[in-house]
Amino acid sequence: MVLLDQTRLPAEETEVVCTDVPALVRAVQTLAVRGAPLLGIAGAYGVALAAARGYDVEEAALQLSGARPTAVNLAYGVRRALAAHRAVTERGADRKEAARAALDEARRLHREDADASTAMAARGLALLDELLPGGGHRILTHCNTGALVSGGEGTAFAVALAAHRAGRLQRLWVDETRPLLQGARLTAYEAARNGLPHTLLTDNAAGSLFAAGEVDAVLVGADRITADGSVANKVGTYPLAVLAKYHHVPFVVVAPVTTIDIGTPDGASIEIEQRPASEVTQLTVLGAAGVAAAPPGGPAASAPPGTRAYNPAFDVTPPELVTAIVTEAGVVSPVTGDGIAELCARSLQVTIS
Amino acid sequence: MVLLDQTRLPAEETEVVCTDVPALVRAVQTLAVRGAPLLGIAGAYGVALAAARGYDVEEAALQLSGARPTAVNLAYGVRRALAAHRAVTERGADRKEAARAALDEARRLHREDADASTAMAARGLALLDELLPGGGHRILTHCNTGALVSGGEGTAFAVALAAHRAGRLQRLWVDETRPLLQGARLTAYEAARNGLPHTLLTDNAAGSLFAAGEVDAVLVGADRITADGSVANKVGTYPLAVLAKYHHVPFVVVAPVTTIDIGTPDGASIEIEQRPASEVTQLTVLGAAGVAAAPPGGPAASAPPGTRAYNPAFDVTPPELVTAIVTEAGVVSPVTGDGIAELCARSLQVTIS
Repeated sequence: MVLLDQTRLPAEETEVVCTDVPALVRAVQTLAVRGAPLLGIAGAYGVALAAARGYDVEEAALQLSGARPTAVNLAYGVRRALAAHRAVTERGADRKEAARAALDEARRLHREDADASTAMAARGLALLDELLPGGGHRILTHCNTGALVSGGEGTAFAVALAAHRAGRLQRLWVDETRPLLQGARLTAYEAARNGLPHTLLTDNAAGSLFAAGEVDAVLVGADRITADGSVANKVGTYPLAVLAKYHHVPFVVVAPVTTIDIGTPDGASIEIEQRPASEVTQLTVLGAAGVAAAPPGGPAASAPPGTRAYNPAFDVTPPELVTAIVTEAGVVSPVTGDGIAELCARSLQVTIS
Repeated sequence: MVLLDQTRLPAEETEVVCTDVPALVRAVQTLAVRGAPLLGIAGAYGVALAAARGYDVEEAALQLSGARPTAVNLAYGVRRALAAHRAVTERGADRKEAARAALDEARRLHREDADASTAMAARGLALLDELLPGGGHRILTHCNTGALVSGGEGTAFAVALAAHRAGRLQRLWVDETRPLLQGARLTAYEAARNGLPHTLLTDNAAGSLFAAGEVDAVLVGADRITADGSVANKVGTYPLAVLAKYHHVPFVVVAPVTTIDIGTPDGASIEIEQRPASEVTQLTVLGAAGVAAAPPGGPAASAPPGTRAYNPAFDVTPPELVTAIVTEAGVVSPVTGDGIAELCARSLQVTIS
């Protein structure tokens, strides 16, 4: 598997080659590959890789599913490829045929995700036009949700891109998204590549943008949406939802149906990944060579040695703060458990038909 | 004037020596010396320096006052020393005597600020005990408000320190405070030096702490408080105030009376300093030698070259989101224009008596 190494962007476009499952697990954990939909695709291809290489596929699936706990798509992608592999194996097919089935399923998921992206962009833009009849959208986004996280053009970013193509995006406000700066490194990179008018800000500067009336809508992705409509997404999403509520600004979540985890009842039941303190206490910087580098004198500490840090990767936004959830199968608004259930039922029909 | 260079903390305790006013203006603008009360003291000493060196004192005062626009204390400190200098000059005193008067006034302001710090800590702790009768305070703070910004032990930090000494501080949550990381670099340093139980977090992680019920009160300083009780403070303060309101958590501002600018009617009238985009688009890291360093390959860019950034140094919190303003002369709660006016009148009496 050849992955674009997202930890080296925007300074350098380099590839990570994973020839076995442990290498892929490492790539997932170091965030070389990241973003909920893309993790699902990577998980499925990982199972196909294990099958092609003749590794223990069940064991590989277990390792891949557990590489990161919060994004439901990772486990979903793994499950899809594994199910395809199992089904063919149970029919008495040989290893090669089973590996082919896993690969086909991974490719199918990849294509489905690209199609979902297109559908979300169209539905999201229609929703924005409805919510903001005046046009001239100024959209705030958090973390990274573009082509880098998707088989297509992404989730929230794809909607902003659609608004731009329709001539209606006035500005994309890009939260830098500490600690790992996915907004500064990745969203600013994707916005520049696509010619979107965009401005970067520290996460805590969003407040004064809202206060100044400079934000017309917030668009974010999701890592997991529970049965009641709670949204786990990159840490910093919840404060934006509270600010949006306080300022009567629409707060819209854009995510494929695969992000919905109907088996988890509510936000409180979501396991939130806690990441190392060093992501907060040390600044990792990228040189022109794209290599994470510390200055010559020692580590790039931003805090005194030994400082304890609280570093959750995600936070949870309750349904009452979410104006709408946009999926490829439809828009849920207002966000309620019934609405989510209905969407899932409808989406199942779409899949079956 | 010898200043502790705050840009090199926590890696190194080095001094900046300013032998003329332009050097001091530079130290103010590069944030080698920073924090509202300390800027006032530095401004007063700067006038004394100009007088002692035989420079044009009026011109020096003008340059110093304009070095940074938002903190009212800087102009106040300059004005105090200048007024003392003028008064003695007008009485026909010689240069040396006038310079002495300016220096005496700077020292007086310095002492007054230390006394104010002690008084704010006592009043702030009493208020906390009243607001949180259960004890076991878990306090969230933003930016840096300790001895580094004050002639004494600071403003908000001094209250946390008093709570710690009284055995009632369970935890100080320290926002890292992007882009310049005053929380990570300076507050974590001061908390460690004073033995406070403290945990660092990215600014956007505060939301999930509130949601988890882990914050009992927010304590922040102020750079300017207007006649209606609006509070200009480090960018990121306003979103905390909104989160605190949403979660019914007290939001307390601790600042000396000199921070109140009765001549500015409201928050909308405050000039907010916009700082360079490079503070957001490039990470300045401190090596073991304490020197801001870029990795060997090039600048420490966190965003693609040419990325535009929105980088206000401060934001404004309206009075309705502030539970109380704690000053050395008394506590204003609820925060109203009348309350502020009354406090100023009382404080004037205290000064006169």
